[in-house]
Amino acid sequence: MTTIRPYQPADWAALWPLLRATFERGDTYAYAPSSSEEEIHRAWIEVPAATFVACDAAGTLLGTYTLKPNQPGLGAHVCNCGYVVAPSSSGQGIATLMCEHSQAQAVAMGFRAMQFNLVVSTNTRAVRLWQHLGFAVAGTLPGAFHHATLGYVDALVMFKQLVK
Amino acid sequence: MTTIRPYQPADWAALWPLLRATFERGDTYAYAPSSSEEEIHRAWIEVPAATFVACDAAGTLLGTYTLKPNQPGLGAHVCNCGYVVAPSSSGQGIATLMCEHSQAQAVAMGFRAMQFNLVVSTNTRAVRLWQHLGFAVAGTLPGAFHHATLGYVDALVMFKQLVK
Repeated sequence: MTTIRPYQPADWAALWPLLRATFERGDTYAYAPSSSEEEIHRAWIEVPAATFVACDAAGTLLGTYTLKPNQPGLGAHVCNCGYVVAPSSSGQGIATLMCEHSQAQAVAMGFRAMQFNLVVSTNTRAVRLWQHLGFAVAGTLPGAFHHATLGYVDALVMFKQLVK
Repeated sequence: MTTIRPYQPADWAALWPLLRATFERGDTYAYAPSSSEEEIHRAWIEVPAATFVACDAAGTLLGTYTLKPNQPGLGAHVCNCGYVVAPSSSGQGIATLMCEHSQAQAVAMGFRAMQFNLVVSTNTRAVRLWQHLGFAVAGTLPGAFHHATLGYVDALVMFKQLVK
């Protein structure tokens, strides 16, 4: 039984190693692999409008996501989300659960659409999952992601309208 | 004779009314039309890696642009720019001059590509100008801009590689 609930400061001790391990790989997120704990706390907790965590029945952290406006003012009706799943929980549908939760949460917060700005094209599992969940590839950015092992690879902008 | 030079703090007194007049229209930039002077100073001067102004021979401000990384870390080789031309100087090639200057400046700063995240589709003159200057429409974001008079309109992501 997976529960998704708002982040609480007491989660950070378990959340930071999970985020660090993900960003250190340099294959899915733009955050520099050498980012400090302070930088990531700011990006994942302080800047977003909301941060959530997914936990199992024992309270163990399985994943996390953030939600924020993608642009100021006249673009602030489109939100942006980021999702991270613990490697040990990969393939268990946690990303799907979190993405569906984030869409409901976004609508509840008044957003009309959701946009991902930099989906790494070589992260094919993520691309397929977002497409399965209703996101369209709005465009391709040539060489826009500097992959830690593959060098410059394309990134995708993905978009889903939540409110018609 | 138009000169483009780095912004200096003494420029703000002339720059702020120009930016305010542009953003107040709510037809080209996402900044809320009611944005405060402090918010726009932060967005146009403090956040960007560089801000430039275009002046005539008498030193009168004709336009301005900003340049910054579009993403952190592994996406920081792609820059983002924003351009504003004084209404009284419209149609005189100032935007072209600034965009060409910004591309040279971006390469000098080590950027490999330039991306515009939210080009308002109804701003057809800008879309045509960027295309003329080598930018491609990478994608269309449905209803991503809340135009002050037209309501929700599409926005374009535009992209140009500067270094092969």
